Amino acid sequence: VYGVDEQTLPGAIHVLLQQQHRTIATAESCTAGSIAAALGSVPGSSKSFLGGIVSYANEVKIDLLGVDAAEIERSGAVSESVAQQMAEGVRKRLSASLGLGITGIAGPSGGTHKKPVGLVWVAIADTHGCVTRRLQLSGDREAIQSRSTTAALGFLWETVRAAEPLKTAKS
Amino acid sequence: VYGVDEQTLPGAIHVLLQQQHRTIATAESCTAGSIAAALGSVPGSSKSFLGGIVSYANEVKIDLLGVDAAEIERSGAVSESVAQQMAEGVRKRLSASLGLGITGIAGPSGGTHKKPVGLVWVAIADTHGCVTRRLQLSGDREAIQSRSTTAALGFLWETVRAAEPLKTAKS
Repeated sequence: VYGVDEQTLPGAIHVLLQQQHRTIATAESCTAGSIAAALGSVPGSSKSFLGGIVSYANEVKIDLLGVDAAEIERSGAVSESVAQQMAEGVRKRLSASLGLGITGIAGPSGGTHKKPVGLVWVAIADTHGCVTRRLQLSGDREAIQSRSTTAALGFLWETVRAAEPLKTAKS
Repeated sequence: VYGVDEQTLPGAIHVLLQQQHRTIATAESCTAGSIAAALGSVPGSSKSFLGGIVSYANEVKIDLLGVDAAEIERSGAVSESVAQQMAEGVRKRLSASLGLGITGIAGPSGGTHKKPVGLVWVAIADTHGCVTRRLQLSGDREAIQSRSTTAALGFLWETVRAAEPLKTAKS
């Protein structure tokens, strides 16, 4: 249902990006490069996929993506605002049309009552604004990483297909 | 054969890294984040895996990894020297003990007589030097990306297991 027969989700995203003459860069924490790998699996993907940053350590989020250290302290690394800053940071850092940021708790450890294992925030930024989505996924580490990759690609596909300037919601 | 029963290759690498109190960062081109994703698939991997950079576009290699633009011009993005500079660049950029760089031609296009599809250079750098390995892989894009990921992880495992300062070969 992404478009033509046998087209994969990353393939469908690349078709839309190339039609729209837009590029994308990724900033991943919990998925550790899986979204970049999926985007890079498509032949010819280098036309629209510029690259990405896997920011496992908080220092990488701060130093390379420009995430505010005080915001990580205040809201935690797994939060809507950090996902937004990751998306905006990687978009600017790689001079891409779109940036995708994802941060979550893949487990098995690291979960709390307020932020359980499987909580994932995804953000997509363009030059106008940033949209976000909260996921609560079940399963083991492998399942959470795989499901959050698929969910983030689905969110990206919807967002690119809409082809409208993004509008940041007031929170 | 990596160590204890049922241990995966990335799992075995993390056990060694943690025993040696060393950390790693990755710089990937042709594998597009697959090596980072494999390293990040291991529970507790954030102790030794700091993160990585997926440098699909040459501008990302130059701007984020500090690869010399003249060297890309001279030797090509798929070359031993660029793999070395990617490994050294990401090691320094993320303040890791070890850096892994990989650049290759996953195809289906982009191959030449001298540099056919399936040619991949892997480099591993520490503070002392940098070791490299040339791969020539067969198969379609998916197979080349998957095989180069496995081969790079195998090379990393051998290198970490040796636990010796790396020595750059004179070329």
